Amino acid sequence: MRRTMFEDDHHAFRESARAFVDRALRSNYPRFVEQRGIDRDVWLEAGRQGLLGLEVPEEHGGSGADDYRFNTVFAEELCALSAGVASCLGIHGDVVGRYLVDLCTEEQKRRWLPRFCSGELVTAIGMTEPSGGSDLAALKTTAVRDGSDWVLNGSKTFITNGFSADLVLVAAGTSPDRGARGISLFAVESGTPGFERGRKLDKVGQPESDTAELFFSDVRLPADNLVGEVDRGFAHMMRRLPQERLGAAVSNLAHAAQILVETVEYTKERKAFGQSIGSFQANKFTLAELVTKVDVTQAYVDQCVLAHNAGELTAIDAAKAKFWTADVQNSVLDACVQLHGGYGYMTEYRVARAWMDARVTRIWAGSNEIMKELIGRDLGL
Amino acid sequence: MRRTMFEDDHHAFRESARAFVDRALRSNYPRFVEQRGIDRDVWLEAGRQGLLGLEVPEEHGGSGADDYRFNTVFAEELCALSAGVASCLGIHGDVVGRYLVDLCTEEQKRRWLPRFCSGELVTAIGMTEPSGGSDLAALKTTAVRDGSDWVLNGSKTFITNGFSADLVLVAAGTSPDRGARGISLFAVESGTPGFERGRKLDKVGQPESDTAELFFSDVRLPADNLVGEVDRGFAHMMRRLPQERLGAAVSNLAHAAQILVETVEYTKERKAFGQSIGSFQANKFTLAELVTKVDVTQAYVDQCVLAHNAGELTAIDAAKAKFWTADVQNSVLDACVQLHGGYGYMTEYRVARAWMDARVTRIWAGSNEIMKELIGRDLGL
Amino acid sequence: MRRTMFEDDHHAFRESARAFVDRALRSNYPRFVEQRGIDRDVWLEAGRQGLLGLEVPEEHGGSGADDYRFNTVFAEELCALSAGVASCLGIHGDVVGRYLVDLCTEEQKRRWLPRFCSGELVTAIGMTEPSGGSDLAALKTTAVRDGSDWVLNGSKTFITNGFSADLVLVAAGTSPDRGARGISLFAVESGTPGFERGRKLDKVGQPESDTAELFFSDVRLPADNLVGEVDRGFAHMMRRLPQERLGAAVSNLAHAAQILVETVEYTKERKAFGQSIGSFQANKFTLAELVTKVDVTQAYVDQCVLAHNAGELTAIDAAKAKFWTADVQNSVLDACVQLHGGYGYMTEYRVARAWMDARVTRIWAGSNEIMKELIGRDLGL
Amino acid sequence: MRRTMFEDDHHAFRESARAFVDRALRSNYPRFVEQRGIDRDVWLEAGRQGLLGLEVPEEHGGSGADDYRFNTVFAEELCALSAGVASCLGIHGDVVGRYLVDLCTEEQKRRWLPRFCSGELVTAIGMTEPSGGSDLAALKTTAVRDGSDWVLNGSKTFITNGFSADLVLVAAGTSPDRGARGISLFAVESGTPGFERGRKLDKVGQPESDTAELFFSDVRLPADNLVGEVDRGFAHMMRRLPQERLGAAVSNLAHAAQILVETVEYTKERKAFGQSIGSFQANKFTLAELVTKVDVTQAYVDQCVLAHNAGELTAIDAAKAKFWTADVQNSVLDACVQLHGGYGYMTEYRVARAWMDARVTRIWAGSNEIMKELIGRDLGL
Repeated sequence: MRRTMFEDDHHAFRESARAFVDRALRSNYPRFVEQRGIDRDVWLEAGRQGLLGLEVPEEHGGSGADDYRFNTVFAEELCALSAGVASCLGIHGDVVGRYLVDLCTEEQKRRWLPRFCSGELVTAIGMTEPSGGSDLAALKTTAVRDGSDWVLNGSKTFITNGFSADLVLVAAGTSPDRGARGISLFAVESGTPGFERGRKLDKVGQPESDTAELFFSDVRLPADNLVGEVDRGFAHMMRRLPQERLGAAVSNLAHAAQILVETVEYTKERKAFGQSIGSFQANKFTLAELVTKVDVTQAYVDQCVLAHNAGELTAIDAAKAKFWTADVQNSVLDACVQLHGGYGYMTEYRVARAWMDARVTRIWAGSNEIMKELIGRDLGL
Repeated sequence: MRRTMFEDDHHAFRESARAFVDRALRSNYPRFVEQRGIDRDVWLEAGRQGLLGLEVPEEHGGSGADDYRFNTVFAEELCALSAGVASCLGIHGDVVGRYLVDLCTEEQKRRWLPRFCSGELVTAIGMTEPSGGSDLAALKTTAVRDGSDWVLNGSKTFITNGFSADLVLVAAGTSPDRGARGISLFAVESGTPGFERGRKLDKVGQPESDTAELFFSDVRLPADNLVGEVDRGFAHMMRRLPQERLGAAVSNLAHAAQILVETVEYTKERKAFGQSIGSFQANKFTLAELVTKVDVTQAYVDQCVLAHNAGELTAIDAAKAKFWTADVQNSVLDACVQLHGGYGYMTEYRVARAWMDARVTRIWAGSNEIMKELIGRDLGL
Repeated sequence: MRRTMFEDDHHAFRESARAFVDRALRSNYPRFVEQRGIDRDVWLEAGRQGLLGLEVPEEHGGSGADDYRFNTVFAEELCALSAGVASCLGIHGDVVGRYLVDLCTEEQKRRWLPRFCSGELVTAIGMTEPSGGSDLAALKTTAVRDGSDWVLNGSKTFITNGFSADLVLVAAGTSPDRGARGISLFAVESGTPGFERGRKLDKVGQPESDTAELFFSDVRLPADNLVGEVDRGFAHMMRRLPQERLGAAVSNLAHAAQILVETVEYTKERKAFGQSIGSFQANKFTLAELVTKVDVTQAYVDQCVLAHNAGELTAIDAAKAKFWTADVQNSVLDACVQLHGGYGYMTEYRVARAWMDARVTRIWAGSNEIMKELIGRDLGL
Repeated sequence: MRRTMFEDDHHAFRESARAFVDRALRSNYPRFVEQRGIDRDVWLEAGRQGLLGLEVPEEHGGSGADDYRFNTVFAEELCALSAGVASCLGIHGDVVGRYLVDLCTEEQKRRWLPRFCSGELVTAIGMTEPSGGSDLAALKTTAVRDGSDWVLNGSKTFITNGFSADLVLVAAGTSPDRGARGISLFAVESGTPGFERGRKLDKVGQPESDTAELFFSDVRLPADNLVGEVDRGFAHMMRRLPQERLGAAVSNLAHAAQILVETVEYTKERKAFGQSIGSFQANKFTLAELVTKVDVTQAYVDQCVLAHNAGELTAIDAAKAKFWTADVQNSVLDACVQLHGGYGYMTEYRVARAWMDARVTRIWAGSNEIMKELIGRDLGL
């Protein structure tokens, strides 16, 4: 069904986002996969095109769009090529950006946002820990006050952009006895003594997105590196969950939708037993189910985008979008692999890579199980 | 998620639709189930409230609303009580009404529409035949010209309102050698010689909706009973498919959504092993999945309603809505039965009846398989 | 795949079981549905054929077969006609019989078993209560000692054969403070003062099986009506769970398998769009999946039967069989309904009744959720 | 449930198979993954242990076991470490071995079987072609007679062991106008002029199993390299399908069962939100479902093994086993990944690799869709 939420500005922006993808990413993508990370030039070029600071005020180098439909368009165009690149740029622009814009002091904004927008300052966010998964109340990383400084100790894992980031927003316990109510956020910059990174993690998919473990040993941070209020980190994070989950949902669906379009074409062209494989009724029905699933889900995601623009998207409705789209994405891509036959198992085929790329979306940023737990609680259960 | 498509008029209309349901249906519903059919008084009262002719111009006794959101509201309120009553009134107001308004001559409109709107003329539509199911090209009912009259022979089955209808819109082959391109539509009125009905069919669910087989033996119809153009019946039907399917989708989802709300409450109150059954995590996750499924689907259905209002809803997008909602409805209700334990198997419980009521929606008005075939073809497969 | 566990004796027994079904049940079945209960003559005829006491020693009027393959054959043949009749006779012969044979004193055996085998004494078992479902530790029915008698108070619900049973084996708390460890079993005979029954419950399916609520108000029972040991009722029940669950599994699968065979035939004969509906690839694949599911499951059920004969079937392996077969049965029958199109929704069609009959098997005798809980605990989780 | 088909000999054989896996494979496995292929030493050691010629008569260097339970045990032990190694050794011992033993002349047996059993002659089988997938009637590879020789032209793809094999059994059209009835089998040995291989294909999983495309350009083969009868290749292949499919089924299930056992342990140890993750009810139920699924399926596979030993396993029953186990394997492993959270997405975790390894089993050796088509036809649809 025709999507109705986009206006002329968004269509125009889609053209330039697509042009960026074609120019800066498409031909380099195989190399990014090989080297397991994208070039800094991608960030700089995205910065030049004004794609990194969609929500950053113009005075700080951004485009101050403040309309999540632009973020949507950009994520969709990235996902059409690579879920991994979308992850890298999404964590930066869509997730960390929101924190910096909302929580930083004017001084911090001047310090970080211009380079954030230009691509000189690549960012990441560190919540998950090796021992605790999504359980923020069990955080083991701590920051202890020492004079006006903070001393950070602990580790984080599964950090997207973790290997390449210039600045990592780290959640740490500042009043550990207060559980989730004793967490603060700190900006840890590359080169700070005591801040080390592990090797790039070898993931099932999204090899072009660097992911790493981060280690903090007596990392001394000046008070100016505290982002937001002391002990209010959990609240800061909760407040940003709708957008983080919505961003995931947008990408999940766009990724699946793109591969599905390609798969429909493939099944028209590929012949077996004397006919196109898409014309076999079982395949035809499968594809009919998949396009329906994508269309139905798109309606919900678009509704979420508009609700977010209106300031009405709840963390629960966003949780629904996140887990549902992750399931849709994975089931769609699994079926697309199957429709490609043996070629679907060859990594040089986009569908094979997409299938591997997608598996993480049911796990990260709050697994589907966490989402269901939250939705269930919200029902009063 | 909050639905955004309704405006004040629709909210006000919902109140009166709900009042009608409470007043005219709620207390009588068990009796309607018992007698396998609703009272004529229901029709007359609905007529008095202006609920039967939402799309009929005011000059012919309707309210000329011409905004499918009103149909949506009415169907939702009916489904909240009874899927079967919604079927009866939906076939009349939402399906047959559309044909009569669009295709009738002025004379025919004057003849039928006022009583259509008042509830004095209950209508049905007869397409399906015992031998052929949904295959309109294989229609065996024929109408042969004899002078200016037509002589109708054949039979129809699974006709909602079939036992009680005063007027049945019947599809018959008028140029049988031309297959689907040789079908015409006829209004067959109760009492016409040769028009007989079988007993009320004993269905798995929706007992309050009368369903019957219809028989036509040399039924002589004046030329004035032809509805629309000769041999263009198939095109006439195709043209009305988006609304017919959309109406089914609206009802399917509203029915499931209502029972789900009630089930969530039930699982909060019902205790087992010392806790409310909804608080068991497996049940909680199930309910989280169901509410998500309903919310996601509602977004699509609402989008279809708006598209239909804009004259943009295609038969294919409506086919997606129809089969998808039927699947959602059935899976939601099956889970709701399970959550009720043994009580879910007792017909005095609403959930048990709802489960039986819902089974037909994957079958009728073009089965889910037919929908997928059409969607697949539309993909060029 | 060919089943290998049956020998000549079992094949011969199948012939006589089938003859019994044809003679005593087939033509009466519609009437049993109508009157919501089977005739006493069915019980007496089954008794004459030696079908009720397969596990009862010959000295007490049974056939002393002590080979669960005979029970399997009988249940399969009953299910081929009617899941409800299989429930009635299964509760009696397969469930209650086991308790009586294992736990009764010689005097009790002489008192009850001959008439149990002849069909003069129809039995039922009462565990489930209105408030507590499957939670035996929360039993509210109590039996208090008064001299050498016991005085029983409480109620039971969803009792198969409850309306017609001459003897009900009732679980009651005899040391209520000891929870599950304070339960005893009592034989309550029809006509005992204070023992009342509610009306026949109106169920979604299995109308031919009478189900009722039972009420006990100061029912005075002599000590001779205690079955098994005082306060050991829970252990007695646990010990019989493998057979009870296995019996359910055998019936679940046989029921689905029979309707599936009939559905395959139906899809060969029924035509649409110029070909048999079974030849449409989507339907063909569906049927291929269903027969595979049934074959795979049959292998497991047969393995359980042999394990049970060897005294090795655990309650957990039987729990797996019970919930898995219930799921298989329901999914098979749902698909069979769909393949019948509109006729699948008409109660005169066997498939429609079978679908309604089957819904309860995921709920009763320990719901699928209870089974999963038990299996999970057994894994050490 | 306890599996009952194994006897003492099989248990003893399992010990030695396991010892082989531990000694020759376990520590080398990461290297095999890295180098995308196993060492020749593995083959030679397997040969020394008598593991490669289980079905080869002793006179030709095998162990002449002729009892598929041994093949089953060996495959299960291989799969417990690596699905890819199981594929390599299975194609050789379980698939090609069967052809050579059944179809070769005495001279051919003397020529190939001793080295086949010792691991000096690694084999592969070439059916699938780039253009045609599983459609043998559309084979484009041809062998044309030239004097007493045959001249082979064409290509094959997705050939397991294709890069390393010393002998490839190739299906080629010898009477191309006769379709499937004009196919013959040829042994093409490494080093034969005109026989080239492409690079190792980069697959989603099973990197330790080398897979390649094979090219034949005017490959001249003496008459002695024809295996079986001219133009009877299709019949030869059909005849071996039960064992090929059964072998796949055994491996599919063993692979999933092993990872499931490990996952159950993982969920007991891994903590989140203060408890072991396996103790969360939703996870517990998931695991209960998975172990049930595996147990049920194992019963069927074991029944197939015994039927095969008895010469009764049909290609259809084996097709059921193949597609069903592939589905089970994939759904089990997908759930196991999810239960591992972020670690399930890291390739150093066995579960992540297993998930990638398993994806191919629904595709190769006749996709699940092909299996369903065949099963459906066998039903007469």
